[in-house]
Amino acid sequence: MHLFKTSEKYFTVDPWTVVEKGFAPAKQRLAESIFSVANEFMCVRGYFEEGYSGDHLLGSYFSQLYDMTDIKYPQVFKGFITEGATMINTVDWLYTRISLDGEELDLGKVKFSDFRRTLDLKNATLKREFIWTTATQKRLRITFLRFTNIVHTAMGCQRIILEPLNFCGEIKICSGLDFDTLYELAAGWDQTQGTGSRSEQNHDLNFWTCERRQKTKDIWAIQARTRRSGIKLFSSFRLVSDQVITPETVEREKFIGAEFSLQLTENQVASFDKIAVNHWEQANDVEQVWSAGLNRAQKYGEATYDATLEEHSRHWADFWRRMDVEIEGDPELQQGVRYSLYALYINYHGESERRNVLCKLGGEVYNGVNFWDTEIYCHRLYMFLNPEIARKLLMYRYHYLPKALENAKRVDLEGARYPFATLTGVEEMGTWQHVELEIHQNEAIYYAIWHYDKVCGDKEFLYNEGIEMLLQMCRCMASWGGWSPKNGDFGFYGVMGPDEFHMMVNHNCYTNYLGKKMFNYTLEVLEEMRREAPELYELALAKAELRPEEPAEWRRMAEKMRILKDEATGIYEQHDGYFDLPHLDVKNIPVSQIPIYKHWAYIKIFRFNMIKQPDFLNLPYFFSRDFTMAEKKANYEFYEARTSHESSLSPSLHAILAAELGKLEESYHFLAYAARLDLDNYNRNTEQGIHSSSAAGVWAGVVSGFGGLRTDGAVLTLNPTIPASWKSYGFKIFYRGALIEVKVNHDEAIFRALEGPSVQVGIYDQSCQITAEPLSVKVKNHSSEI
Amino acid sequence: MHLFKTSEKYFTVDPWTVVEKGFAPAKQRLAESIFSVANEFMCVRGYFEEGYSGDHLLGSYFSQLYDMTDIKYPQVFKGFITEGATMINTVDWLYTRISLDGEELDLGKVKFSDFRRTLDLKNATLKREFIWTTATQKRLRITFLRFTNIVHTAMGCQRIILEPLNFCGEIKICSGLDFDTLYELAAGWDQTQGTGSRSEQNHDLNFWTCERRQKTKDIWAIQARTRRSGIKLFSSFRLVSDQVITPETVEREKFIGAEFSLQLTENQVASFDKIAVNHWEQANDVEQVWSAGLNRAQKYGEATYDATLEEHSRHWADFWRRMDVEIEGDPELQQGVRYSLYALYINYHGESERRNVLCKLGGEVYNGVNFWDTEIYCHRLYMFLNPEIARKLLMYRYHYLPKALENAKRVDLEGARYPFATLTGVEEMGTWQHVELEIHQNEAIYYAIWHYDKVCGDKEFLYNEGIEMLLQMCRCMASWGGWSPKNGDFGFYGVMGPDEFHMMVNHNCYTNYLGKKMFNYTLEVLEEMRREAPELYELALAKAELRPEEPAEWRRMAEKMRILKDEATGIYEQHDGYFDLPHLDVKNIPVSQIPIYKHWAYIKIFRFNMIKQPDFLNLPYFFSRDFTMAEKKANYEFYEARTSHESSLSPSLHAILAAELGKLEESYHFLAYAARLDLDNYNRNTEQGIHSSSAAGVWAGVVSGFGGLRTDGAVLTLNPTIPASWKSYGFKIFYRGALIEVKVNHDEAIFRALEGPSVQVGIYDQSCQITAEPLSVKVKNHSSEI
Repeated sequence: MHLFKTSEKYFTVDPWTVVEKGFAPAKQRLAESIFSVANEFMCVRGYFEEGYSGDHLLGSYFSQLYDMTDIKYPQVFKGFITEGATMINTVDWLYTRISLDGEELDLGKVKFSDFRRTLDLKNATLKREFIWTTATQKRLRITFLRFTNIVHTAMGCQRIILEPLNFCGEIKICSGLDFDTLYELAAGWDQTQGTGSRSEQNHDLNFWTCERRQKTKDIWAIQARTRRSGIKLFSSFRLVSDQVITPETVEREKFIGAEFSLQLTENQVASFDKIAVNHWEQANDVEQVWSAGLNRAQKYGEATYDATLEEHSRHWADFWRRMDVEIEGDPELQQGVRYSLYALYINYHGESERRNVLCKLGGEVYNGVNFWDTEIYCHRLYMFLNPEIARKLLMYRYHYLPKALENAKRVDLEGARYPFATLTGVEEMGTWQHVELEIHQNEAIYYAIWHYDKVCGDKEFLYNEGIEMLLQMCRCMASWGGWSPKNGDFGFYGVMGPDEFHMMVNHNCYTNYLGKKMFNYTLEVLEEMRREAPELYELALAKAELRPEEPAEWRRMAEKMRILKDEATGIYEQHDGYFDLPHLDVKNIPVSQIPIYKHWAYIKIFRFNMIKQPDFLNLPYFFSRDFTMAEKKANYEFYEARTSHESSLSPSLHAILAAELGKLEESYHFLAYAARLDLDNYNRNTEQGIHSSSAAGVWAGVVSGFGGLRTDGAVLTLNPTIPASWKSYGFKIFYRGALIEVKVNHDEAIFRALEGPSVQVGIYDQSCQITAEPLSVKVKNHSSEI
Repeated sequence: MHLFKTSEKYFTVDPWTVVEKGFAPAKQRLAESIFSVANEFMCVRGYFEEGYSGDHLLGSYFSQLYDMTDIKYPQVFKGFITEGATMINTVDWLYTRISLDGEELDLGKVKFSDFRRTLDLKNATLKREFIWTTATQKRLRITFLRFTNIVHTAMGCQRIILEPLNFCGEIKICSGLDFDTLYELAAGWDQTQGTGSRSEQNHDLNFWTCERRQKTKDIWAIQARTRRSGIKLFSSFRLVSDQVITPETVEREKFIGAEFSLQLTENQVASFDKIAVNHWEQANDVEQVWSAGLNRAQKYGEATYDATLEEHSRHWADFWRRMDVEIEGDPELQQGVRYSLYALYINYHGESERRNVLCKLGGEVYNGVNFWDTEIYCHRLYMFLNPEIARKLLMYRYHYLPKALENAKRVDLEGARYPFATLTGVEEMGTWQHVELEIHQNEAIYYAIWHYDKVCGDKEFLYNEGIEMLLQMCRCMASWGGWSPKNGDFGFYGVMGPDEFHMMVNHNCYTNYLGKKMFNYTLEVLEEMRREAPELYELALAKAELRPEEPAEWRRMAEKMRILKDEATGIYEQHDGYFDLPHLDVKNIPVSQIPIYKHWAYIKIFRFNMIKQPDFLNLPYFFSRDFTMAEKKANYEFYEARTSHESSLSPSLHAILAAELGKLEESYHFLAYAARLDLDNYNRNTEQGIHSSSAAGVWAGVVSGFGGLRTDGAVLTLNPTIPASWKSYGFKIFYRGALIEVKVNHDEAIFRALEGPSVQVGIYDQSCQITAEPLSVKVKNHSSEI
């Protein structure tokens, strides 16, 4: 095991906060990503709201708020998409300008000290404070607070506190809503640069046309529309100050704001709060959106910063109560795991089934799309937090079934092809050699449906929406697959597996294996429905217009599915011909050549046995019982040795399998890396946004890794173990109505139901009942089992 | 055999001309391509010089005159090229405007009759005539003549003849040089549309900035520069009329011209000639290029249309004397073969070793680049026309050796990687999945060097330039290749073979086989040089900085090169896993789905055993003696059945092999298709330009097909046969200083040396001496041999 990557320690380690002490301009983009606050509906990076002339990315995004951009190719072939939706930069609702004695506050220009930026993970609030010393030697302590309300997600709250340290006098403030923001990614995404280059003219990077702006009573509001997508975003704010202010309205083309002065008294704090309310719709009627927005703003017309913060914090307290992972004896990992949970929950918490987990949060790269990461990495966590959220993520896909049918037709397939990278239900990315060849998105959705059925047993969903998706997805996979003329095997030709270092391969083991599972499961569900819910069964067949021969075809495809395996070694072959690929000593690639995508010519990557991320190795995690321990060990050791871990999804899966194999130290290293991926900027690209799905993997790294949670048996199984460096750890899972707490130290693992009924689980392969009464089991070391 | 494609008969069949009788506006772009005239230096499509408001492409190109354009991708990875050279549209030096009674001549608007456009293949001239009836009922017969002088290639000549049929009076003419032309391809190339869409603004499609324009004595001249490539094009003309004219100079931003009147007398012809002289350079100094251009124009200052035509026709007569193919009893094929020879010779005739054969002539698609077609299809023909030309084509590559070294480095390779599609010596096309993966361009150049050595025996070239290229190309191939960990075989992984329907394959048989040959041949040449030319040997090693271990490595790579073959059937496997690909009944794809590229989603194409064009099958043609007749038969039948013949290069190769296998009717059908590919617009894309390399294949289809010429033995071998429908045919080849004539009818084949010494060849595997005395041999039918 060798991860190639080195950490870039910058933030202070603490169990419940992330702190930046002192300001390093070169780290501003990194810190802006890390200090993102979000509430699923909207997200703002940790940018300086008072304006900043140094390099930064003032990013304010709304989930699913997109515009269309052209996608260009050297040559357009049939089926290529020529435009795609992309989550654009929107209104800067935190906009503030502060000037004292005619000196404008800009940390790129003024003198300041005692800078500190603090993310409070428990309460999901961001605080920034420093002392500004003006040219006139006035010293002013300023504190900025912000949060995006997780209960009423339209609301963004800002508080600014001013404390003059050596003077009395007046300070000028302008607080506003600014649509003059730049969507940098529109300038192009260069993999070799890592971010969009910024060479293009700025006017191409702003996507907004202002439709209306107005002050109505104490509410300033502005509304603007996108270029092509027909989306209108209404943004508004009120000001609440502890002194009487007399604001004057300021308007510019894409801006509305309020200018006012505050009277400062030496050593006394003055402050003002901004309560922003945002609303957006895809609609034609300017007035309709305006009045809906204004209604919402008026609905929150009495809300205060403090009251809002209280409801926000209550919600977060409940989240931590249900989901917190405690690690004793490892502050770095403790912080990393909590930050990961924070990063995922601000991304998506199940408010809407028309939103999904953005694969990167608080950045522009990847365009705000979601990938298979949702089903493979995130869905599991939500299932054990709250099955309702897991259901919503599946319903998100269900709502886009008509689009998936279109998306299949575009590339000459039948049924439904769920897009690999999507925001509007169709494929959004033009990197066809990845997104179009990675046909395993359908399989990921099958996996999540199966998994949800298995763990949550929601037959109502399965027999209605679930089966409809399954039928159309099977149909699609059947239309991609082909029969070998050599031996009559079935399989998927010309694909890319999860490992993105091999392109246009045949019989990718992961894809074939999941395809087989999906066909079989769909047939089982049909059989179950015919027995248990004959009316819904008939309805499903009719809706899908299932041809009588299709189930038999799928059965035969599943039966004849080629799964390549070397029987002598027990090693599954990643795809046809993989074992024949020239060997590359991946662990000895110089660090200077990492990441591979940046340092190797793209076309060179694909002709070796080096893999980017786990491909086959996902299977012994998903379907633990399908493989013997000896097979797991052989395959883990074979493939890990060939893995560059270039994907952020790679380490956590390896952490899980290593723990199962008793390679506790190795597991720990993978987990430690995954947990601090963004905090320590291992990939040197956190400035582009937070790796949310990797964050979900971190949770799994603890719970399925050291906790040994597996889901593919008749009941849940847990096989806890503990790394040497930890004193103890604990986590919780919500399962069949019970909130189960698991606490593990080097002697014992203690299980109990904090809430809900007692439930049956397997612990070290013994069937156990977990009740309110703590159950103590001696911790085993797995490694001896192999 | 089933070619899918249907002919679109339009032009009149005649042995020495191509005639369009009557004008069909919908066929204008097609006819413009077919009626292109060119002389290697420049090319003009058969457009209407008097202006035409209907759909057309006014195309005037100079070989190697390019500008740079940006290449965009959805995502840029390392090694991707972000700009490429493209042969842009240039000056309309034929520009003419004619008006009578204020009515401007425009065949899109005026009344006309008796339209006829005639391409004279013998003399390489284009004539167009019609009768214009004005709104005032005046009837005027107009004849336009043009040619591009093949001897002094800077000269383009135009003659316009006017004959009033029912009136006397004055006609107004404006003759000029117009840089206001549009490069349509800059609007993007959409494979599904076939041509560039024309949606972009016109100002983006003109690449010229005028630098200077002036009349100097009787010469009107203008000079303009490209946007980025730093090329300046000087264009000039003189007017010669049979009556005294008093022209006035007209200037516009990108235009200079002469306005004058001609006095017309009923039933008498009046005419005027325009002698254009063009000159271009890549240079910074405006005046330097201008004076070089003007000098050249003045050098031709006394040239007349008639005298110029005479020297032009003399050159063409010599070409036909050496290269004509006569077919008795098949006027369609006779015309098709002559048109093919015309189309290739106007493309390239060896004037300059800094030019090459454009893969498409008289069009914009493919950007004026050359491909492996030059070495694989065209080089052979030139070798048998005149070895000096064949040498120049190799020297063209040699001059770009430094660029090929750069081109290798760009994609992390060593040595020299010749680009797959090039104009300036580096890769110009961004379709990386084709151009970057088709690594067989180096092998094509090896093949041409080997072939030239074999047939022409030019050791001076081989020991100097040839070996230098070979060493650097071997080094490059060695750096791409890899060793199988399974059995220690060597081969090329992650490539595309000649068959562009399979991407990112391993051990492509064609690529591996030629790689093996190339390593071995290079080692043989080294050995030969060490013996025969030790000083040059040392020089070559020093120049290439050959590492001592490299030759041994190459020997081992050649020895261990994996060549996949099913010993039971004798069928070579196109690449690893090809036999396992799902079968597609390619011959039963509905015609409505042809061409595949237009009708199938791109990503669907690659997962079947359907192939686009011959891949393995090239080998039994190149290296006839390496394969038994049974192997040839088995492989031909196996692969032809799976071939869609979507490439224009496909049919001629099949014609050659079918003839060898005695499948004379099948061979004939392939040849007939290839020979009339453009004349009958089989691919429905002749409007984009003429398929020049296919034209070279047509010659090979006769000479290597029915003529049975093979070159891989110690001497040339000829095994003539004749298709049932022909009475006789004849061709000539220039070999070892002798111009050999071969005439074949159903009884005998007659060989004689028209010029030069007697030479040894093999005829039906008998060694024969060809002398000035005709040698008659009875014609055999090969099919009985199998």
